[in-house]
Amino acid sequence: MANLTPRAEDFNDWYNTLVVKADLADYGPVRGTMIVKPYGWTLWENIQSALDRRFKATGHLNAGFPMFIPESFMKREAKHVEGFSPELAVVTHAGGEELDEPLIVRPTSETIIGYAYSKWVQSYRDLPILINLWNSVVRWELRTKLFLRTTEFYWQEGHTAHATAEEADFETKQMLDIYADLATNDAAIPVIPGEKSELERFAGANQTYSIEAMMGDRRALQAGTSHNLGQNFAKAFDIKYLDRNNEQQYCWTTSWGLSTRFIGAIIMVHGDDQGLVLPPRLAPHQTVIVPIFKDDEEKSTVMPVARRLGKELSGVGIRVKIDGREHLRPGFKFNDWELRGVPSRIEVGPRDVAKNSVALARRDMPGREGKQFVSQDGLPTTVSQLLEEIQSAMLEKAGRFQEGHTHEPSDYEEFKDVVKNGFARVWWDGDNEDELRVKEQTKATIRCFPNEQPGGVGQCIFTGREAKRMALFSRAY
Amino acid sequence: MANLTPRAEDFNDWYNTLVVKADLADYGPVRGTMIVKPYGWTLWENIQSALDRRFKATGHLNAGFPMFIPESFMKREAKHVEGFSPELAVVTHAGGEELDEPLIVRPTSETIIGYAYSKWVQSYRDLPILINLWNSVVRWELRTKLFLRTTEFYWQEGHTAHATAEEADFETKQMLDIYADLATNDAAIPVIPGEKSELERFAGANQTYSIEAMMGDRRALQAGTSHNLGQNFAKAFDIKYLDRNNEQQYCWTTSWGLSTRFIGAIIMVHGDDQGLVLPPRLAPHQTVIVPIFKDDEEKSTVMPVARRLGKELSGVGIRVKIDGREHLRPGFKFNDWELRGVPSRIEVGPRDVAKNSVALARRDMPGREGKQFVSQDGLPTTVSQLLEEIQSAMLEKAGRFQEGHTHEPSDYEEFKDVVKNGFARVWWDGDNEDELRVKEQTKATIRCFPNEQPGGVGQCIFTGREAKRMALFSRAY
Repeated sequence: MANLTPRAEDFNDWYNTLVVKADLADYGPVRGTMIVKPYGWTLWENIQSALDRRFKATGHLNAGFPMFIPESFMKREAKHVEGFSPELAVVTHAGGEELDEPLIVRPTSETIIGYAYSKWVQSYRDLPILINLWNSVVRWELRTKLFLRTTEFYWQEGHTAHATAEEADFETKQMLDIYADLATNDAAIPVIPGEKSELERFAGANQTYSIEAMMGDRRALQAGTSHNLGQNFAKAFDIKYLDRNNEQQYCWTTSWGLSTRFIGAIIMVHGDDQGLVLPPRLAPHQTVIVPIFKDDEEKSTVMPVARRLGKELSGVGIRVKIDGREHLRPGFKFNDWELRGVPSRIEVGPRDVAKNSVALARRDMPGREGKQFVSQDGLPTTVSQLLEEIQSAMLEKAGRFQEGHTHEPSDYEEFKDVVKNGFARVWWDGDNEDELRVKEQTKATIRCFPNEQPGGVGQCIFTGREAKRMALFSRAY
Repeated sequence: MANLTPRAEDFNDWYNTLVVKADLADYGPVRGTMIVKPYGWTLWENIQSALDRRFKATGHLNAGFPMFIPESFMKREAKHVEGFSPELAVVTHAGGEELDEPLIVRPTSETIIGYAYSKWVQSYRDLPILINLWNSVVRWELRTKLFLRTTEFYWQEGHTAHATAEEADFETKQMLDIYADLATNDAAIPVIPGEKSELERFAGANQTYSIEAMMGDRRALQAGTSHNLGQNFAKAFDIKYLDRNNEQQYCWTTSWGLSTRFIGAIIMVHGDDQGLVLPPRLAPHQTVIVPIFKDDEEKSTVMPVARRLGKELSGVGIRVKIDGREHLRPGFKFNDWELRGVPSRIEVGPRDVAKNSVALARRDMPGREGKQFVSQDGLPTTVSQLLEEIQSAMLEKAGRFQEGHTHEPSDYEEFKDVVKNGFARVWWDGDNEDELRVKEQTKATIRCFPNEQPGGVGQCIFTGREAKRMALFSRAY
C-alpha cells in the first residue's frame, strides 16, 4: 500500500517518497524551501525538548536574536565571510525603499552575537555567557533535499563566551557529548564523536567536532557540530573583558548546532521498506490503538474499551493515538501507522473485549514475530516495557549495522574498495591536498578523527608515513 | 539605584529605560530590530508554554512554514496586499545572483498557508486543519519601540480551515477566549474582548476580534487578535473540498496571533517606579533567595541553609534563584531583583538561621507592609500560597485601575475630556468617516465593540442617532 521504492533499489527515491508520504514535510513554493508538517514538527518538538533539557541542566539559557545582519558584519572575520558568502540571501529593499546597507538573512549568528557580546561583556564577572537560540537560518544551497539540505532550515545554535581557553575547550567538548547522548539514548543512533579535519572545519573555527552516524545506505551523516572559535570572533568583534588584575583580555568563544537534519538521520538509520521506524523516546505517537469493528453493535462494544485503554496509557505519560476513522479498513490503518513509524500498535476487536486482551504489535519487528496477545490488565506497564525494549533493540540493531560495515583496510587498494560501501578507519598523516586526492579518487572524505583512538602509531593509508592518529573515512551526505 | 524616571513624569522614558535595565531586551544593530535577552526570552517561553498547552488542548498542532513568500502570492488577496505592501522587506539576491522573482520575508503567513492548504485539502474528511506556527515575522515600521513595535517580532500565528462558516466563527471566538484566559489568569491583566471596527480590521478579514487592556498610562493596548477570514483567502488561493454530496466547496478560514507585544503589556500594566512587577505564573524566577553574610564564618552558616531551602522550593516546582554573588551588598541585590520584578524574595542571615526563620518579602507590596518573618518549616507551602495571593492581588489591582479610569460620558464634550486619560464606553452608530473625525479631534479610536453589551439601544455619542451597540474608545499603542 505504501508504494515505497525498496531501499535496496533506490535509497534516494525511497527517502524522498517516504518523507512526503509519512506526512513529515512538504515542499515550499520557493525553490529549496520546506514546510514541516505537524507530524514532522511534533518529532522536532520532541527533539527540541530532549536537547533543551540538557542545555538548561548545563547552565544555558535561550534568547532571541534578529534574523537580519548588516552586510558589513559578515566581512569582519575573513574565513567566515569566505565560507558563507556564496550562500547568502540578501534583503535590499524594505518599507518601499532601497536600503543604505543591504541586510543578510542570517546563515548562522556568530557575527551578530559578536556585536552583542562586545557590548554586554565588561568584566570577568560577566563571564561566561551561555546562550542558545532556537531559530531558522538561510543558506542558498543548489542541490536541496527535505530535512537534509534546504535553503531555510530549523536548528539551535549555541553561542558562549569564556574567560579562558580551557573553559572554551571544555564547553566545546561538553556540547558534543550532549549531542552524542541525545543521538544514542533518545534517537537510538550510534554515533562516532570526533574532530573534523582542517578542510571540513566551520568557517572561522580553530577546531570543529562532530558526531557522525551511518545511514541505511552506509553513507555517513554529520548529525551535530561543536566549534571552538578560539579568539577569532572575539578579535573581529572586540569582545573584551577586564580580568582580576584589571587587564583587558579577549574572550574565548564557542558555537554549536544541531538541526532538522537530525530528522533525516532518524529516517535513514531506522527506516525500512514499510516506512519510518521512530524511536519511542522521540516518536510523536508512541502507540496507536486501532479499534476493530464491522457494525454499530461491535462498535459500541469496542470503542469504550479503546477509549478506556487510551486514558490509562496517557495517564502514565505514554503518547497514545486512537485511530477512530470509520471510512478506513483496519488493514489500511495498520499499514498507514507502519508507514508513519509508530513504535507499537494495539488492536482491539470484539473477541479481544470478550477475552479482556488486546493484540500488541511492535513496529521494529514486522509480521507475526512482533505481535503478541496480552491482557488488558496492566497494559500501561506492558506497553512501557515494550517501548523500552524497542528503544534498546533499535540502538542495538543500528550499532550492529554500523560495526558490520566499518572496516580497517590494510592498504589503499582495499581502502578504495571498502569505502564504496561503508566506513573505513585508517591511520592518517596526509595533508589537505592528500585528503582532496583521496576524495577525488574515492568520493570519501575524512568524517572525523574519532575521539576513541587505539593509541600508539601506525602507517598512513595514503602517504605510507608514520601516523599518530586514525581517521574515519566515508562517503557522506 | 534603579535610576528609573518616575512613571508619572515620563511614562515613555520609564518604559524604554526599564526594558533595558531589567535585562529583558536590547537594541539590534539594524534599525528597529530587537535582541530578546535570556531574562526576557524566559518570560516569553513561559507565555509560549501557557498558550501552547491551551492550543493543544483544543486540538491544534504546531508546524513550520518557510519565511520566504513569492512576491506574487501577496498580490492575490486585494485587501491583504494593500494593507501590508508598505511594510515589506524584500530579498532580491541570493546565492550571488539576482532572483527571477523577489521574495518577501513574511509579514504574516496567510498567503503561504493558502498555497499549502489548497494542496492538502481535497475532501471534507481533511477538515478541519488546525495548525499553529511559533516564529518571527517582519514588518518595516518607522517608529519602533522594544516589544511594542519592532521590525522583526516573535509571535504565534494560528491558521485554520473549516468546512462551514459556523465552525470558522466558533474557532475565531474560541481563540479569542483563550487569549483572554491567558491574559486574565496567567498575566493578571484584565482585558476587554470584543470586535474591531471595520477601520481596524486585519487586511483581508471579515471580522477581527481583539483583547484590549489598559496600560499604566491609561492608554489601550491590543494584546491579541483573532480573525474570521471568511472565504476570502480560500477564494484567492483556491482552497476547496468535496463535500458529502460530492460537490466542490470553498473552505472557511481563520487566523489568530499573539506576539512579544504581550510582554510590553505585562510591563506597562504592572510595573512601578521601582521596576517590573511580574505575575508569578509567568515570572522567570518566582522567588529569589538572598543570603546575607559579612564574613566567611557567617557565609558557612548561611549558604547551606540557602541551598537547602532552594532545593525544597524547586522540589515543589517553584522557580527559585539563589543570588550567591559575593561582590554585591544585599541592599543592592534587593533593588536589583525588585527592578527585575521577581514576585517574592527570601532573605536569610545568621540570625534567621539561629531562629529557623526567613524574611519573606512580596514585590507587589513594597516596604515593611509586604515583609514578614516566617518559619523555615513548611516554607514551600508558605511561598506557594504567597505566590497565589500575589497573583490574585495583581489582577485585582489592575482591574480596579482599569475600572477607575473607564468612563461613560453623556455627551461628546465630556467624551473629549475623558478619553484624554482613560477609556470611554459610548453608544456608537457612526461610519468610518465619523470614526476618523473622532480620531482627528481626540486621538482616540474604537478599540473594540465589547462582547459584553448592555442590550437595548442608546444615542450615538457623535452622530446623535439611535445606536444598537456600545464601543470602547481610547488612545492606543
